[in-house]
Amino acid sequence: MKLSLRHSVLLASCLFITAALHMNALGAPPEKASDDETATTAKADTSDDAKPAAKKKGKRTLGIVLYPRFELLDVYGPAEMFGNLPQHLEIVMVAEKAGPVASTQGPKVHADYGFEDCPPLDLVMVPGGFGTLAELRNEALLTWLRDRAESAEIVMSVCSGSAILAKAGLLDGRRATSNKRYFQIAVDQGPNVDWVYKARWVDDGNRVTSSGVSAGIDMALHVIDRLYGTKAAESLADLTEYQWHRDADNDPFAESGKQP
Amino acid sequence: MKLSLRHSVLLASCLFITAALHMNALGAPPEKASDDETATTAKADTSDDAKPAAKKKGKRTLGIVLYPRFELLDVYGPAEMFGNLPQHLEIVMVAEKAGPVASTQGPKVHADYGFEDCPPLDLVMVPGGFGTLAELRNEALLTWLRDRAESAEIVMSVCSGSAILAKAGLLDGRRATSNKRYFQIAVDQGPNVDWVYKARWVDDGNRVTSSGVSAGIDMALHVIDRLYGTKAAESLADLTEYQWHRDADNDPFAESGKQP
Repeated sequence: MKLSLRHSVLLASCLFITAALHMNALGAPPEKASDDETATTAKADTSDDAKPAAKKKGKRTLGIVLYPRFELLDVYGPAEMFGNLPQHLEIVMVAEKAGPVASTQGPKVHADYGFEDCPPLDLVMVPGGFGTLAELRNEALLTWLRDRAESAEIVMSVCSGSAILAKAGLLDGRRATSNKRYFQIAVDQGPNVDWVYKARWVDDGNRVTSSGVSAGIDMALHVIDRLYGTKAAESLADLTEYQWHRDADNDPFAESGKQP
Repeated sequence: MKLSLRHSVLLASCLFITAALHMNALGAPPEKASDDETATTAKADTSDDAKPAAKKKGKRTLGIVLYPRFELLDVYGPAEMFGNLPQHLEIVMVAEKAGPVASTQGPKVHADYGFEDCPPLDLVMVPGGFGTLAELRNEALLTWLRDRAESAEIVMSVCSGSAILAKAGLLDGRRATSNKRYFQIAVDQGPNVDWVYKARWVDDGNRVTSSGVSAGIDMALHVIDRLYGTKAAESLADLTEYQWHRDADNDPFAESGKQP
């Protein structure tokens, strides 16, 4: 059968290219080390043998937090990028309780774990969305985030997710950003945060926050660059035909809203 | 409670802005009419009273097709854009069988309907992903797509999803594109398709196909522009802080792969 023969070869080629991409990610040494010493030592599964060399061989686990009325692209933009490094990183979806969670846009997705049975996480990401406001009063979420942040290598947020991190006190004394349209909501949660209005994303060591929705994709590529090297990030952008906005300070949407 | 008072106002403001966006979408007349007469007459729920005026007031239903190992951003980039027009459009996720479907990147999502119980669809979108190759031999999917395409206003694809449309014969005699890295796979499914290698997306009336992964977002904004007007599309891009690539012929990734 023509299809079987020809496309077996093409599939093998696809898989080879993908494998090569992943090898690139493995082979490329991180070109930017974390500024934060805790970022390289405070892993959830830290033990005597968790040396940098061993860590390179191990997979990181990224936990993406879901809650009712989260914003779809806040979650799946970064998930697309992180999820295409399967040899190095595993994504788990976590919500207060495992099971289906409805997005702001309607489609339901599946949380693999609840807060109570969620495995150790190296990376944590909190999306934004209209559900953010309700979550600011969700003590179960805020307490869980404080707990997980202690052992996480990096805690990230997209869009109004930074309001939740700020409310949990996880951005105190840090530089951070949020989406442009509802920036004040984030600012009001964190009087001790150094809020940066004009930024596509802000990297403050083990806290990395992005601007609105689509900016999460650029932030994810930046974090991949930091953890796995520039070649890995560039290969992913090329694979997904995404024009990576590489300058964190270039925020074309900063003029759309009102600076607080 | 300060939070409740202040953020009730902010939330009201958010909702007002969102409502205003939706009003824009309603109020703005489509600036580009479909070239294809069938696109305006062959709706799934066509009846004597399905006049253009009535149609403007009704909601469209977009069915996004899920299959094992679909690409996350192929689905959720467009879903972010279409899903932010809730007064005008409802998204349903459909797979061969309702229930959880695993993406290439790992995260599982939820199909609301199976092929058998899926409601009438005005718009149909097929994503790409590594699962594409298996689906080329899935007669249940190909038959379902042929059936739904007859009554759909627009059938769309993202990335290698166009290979599936081509295999179903739905692109015969049409202009179409696909992702750059695996372009040949699409070409091989449709010898009677006018494949366009250099394109961010290709609009051929009631068939609109996009290039790889991220290009689906630009295609979705184009279709929203066509159906609901330019202001609606621009507002959505601004809301989601997305720099819309508005030129369908500007494909910066056309040089990354080998032109067939």
